[in-house]
Amino acid sequence: MTYCLAIKVNKGLVFASDSRTNAGVDYVTTYGKMHRFVWPGERVCILLSAGSLATTQAVVNLINKHLEDEAEFNLRTAEHLYEIAHYVGKLNQREQHLHEKAVEKSKINVEASFIVGGQIAGRAPEIYLVYPQGNYISASPETPYLQIGENKYGKPILDRIIGQETSPEDAARCALVSLDSTMRSNISVGPPMELAIYTADSLEEPRHMSLKLASPFYKTLQKRWNEGLKRAFNRLPRFDWEDGK
Amino acid sequence: MTYCLAIKVNKGLVFASDSRTNAGVDYVTTYGKMHRFVWPGERVCILLSAGSLATTQAVVNLINKHLEDEAEFNLRTAEHLYEIAHYVGKLNQREQHLHEKAVEKSKINVEASFIVGGQIAGRAPEIYLVYPQGNYISASPETPYLQIGENKYGKPILDRIIGQETSPEDAARCALVSLDSTMRSNISVGPPMELAIYTADSLEEPRHMSLKLASPFYKTLQKRWNEGLKRAFNRLPRFDWEDGK
Repeated sequence: MTYCLAIKVNKGLVFASDSRTNAGVDYVTTYGKMHRFVWPGERVCILLSAGSLATTQAVVNLINKHLEDEAEFNLRTAEHLYEIAHYVGKLNQREQHLHEKAVEKSKINVEASFIVGGQIAGRAPEIYLVYPQGNYISASPETPYLQIGENKYGKPILDRIIGQETSPEDAARCALVSLDSTMRSNISVGPPMELAIYTADSLEEPRHMSLKLASPFYKTLQKRWNEGLKRAFNRLPRFDWEDGK
Repeated sequence: MTYCLAIKVNKGLVFASDSRTNAGVDYVTTYGKMHRFVWPGERVCILLSAGSLATTQAVVNLINKHLEDEAEFNLRTAEHLYEIAHYVGKLNQREQHLHEKAVEKSKINVEASFIVGGQIAGRAPEIYLVYPQGNYISASPETPYLQIGENKYGKPILDRIIGQETSPEDAARCALVSLDSTMRSNISVGPPMELAIYTADSLEEPRHMSLKLASPFYKTLQKRWNEGLKRAFNRLPRFDWEDGK
């Protein structure tokens, strides 16, 4: 599994991903799942991937090849971000079909999903979720985040905290808490965590961090969050029969 | 779907369940999923159910019938709680097989899972999770809770708060927070929430509450939890570049 998410707030975009990849519980490795394509002043495109590592790597290789070959359509020639989502969906499907027969036989799963986000000069910042089937959705003002992979453990905190008005930094902290909650419950989600914070209309390289469990920032975040939750918990109402307490 | 959980702490047992049942999103109804069987001074047995309503109701009907008929084995003759878990598993399987052919044809799912917990005089309090296949597991000192149904959204808070030393009342508050987080994310989990708190070795009827969204206690709990989370969130560390703030 994997857990990646992207958040779209008024002032920017936040991307977060874990780095654990596993082929069963007995083969666990570390791979970055965040791919940044930046042409300062022109366009910024961040790709997050979940699912079959073979498929996601092949898709990223094709994206890079099309850029090198200056193919008619590539990340740099796209006029809209949704065109990039469509393109990633097509590459994703193509790659999955390549191995169709062998895959059916061995019943392994080569599906992959992606989050594509960023900004093209003159357009608004956007984020899209690309399904294994190649179709895609964007975030909405009501639901300003998208998740791929193990999305359940980390969802409640997003629903409670994130709104369009949230600052990119708060959104990034919330993404880290969401990842932290997920890592505690799903061993197939693991560090280091990659974080990218893009400031709307900057068209510049997003701020990027890779956080290990031992990173002082992450340790402080974990500690304060745990303390804060315990404090919140201790403030919950007592039952009638506890009044004697 | 459904979400039920049971927690075993040193001083007692906590059982919590939602009350929403749905046959697709276009047929949503309310059914209690908590069944209490109490013989004061002798034995206390609580049953929580998730999955096919037809299967779970049939299992409960059989349990009651065996009690009426004073069948050789019934909830009252069982010597150990694990025997009751085994018995519930057998009834569960039997009921599912009754409709096997029709079910295969229509591809509907008649699986059900249960949580069985309580105490028999002279024995320790226990909780068991009974799988659709009829096998079962008990909670452990390291993982003193069991969940059935939609178990992911509400798991992180349990992992952060619950330990053997937790008081039954704190465990109950934690169960309500866990249910609340789940209800926000999964529309197939809904109120009223039923809560039963059993005091270890009391062998008495557990304290029982049914909480609607409008219940003052539940509203206060929701409000304080939200405020507490926001406060915890605002205490998280700032990024270097925010220092100017």
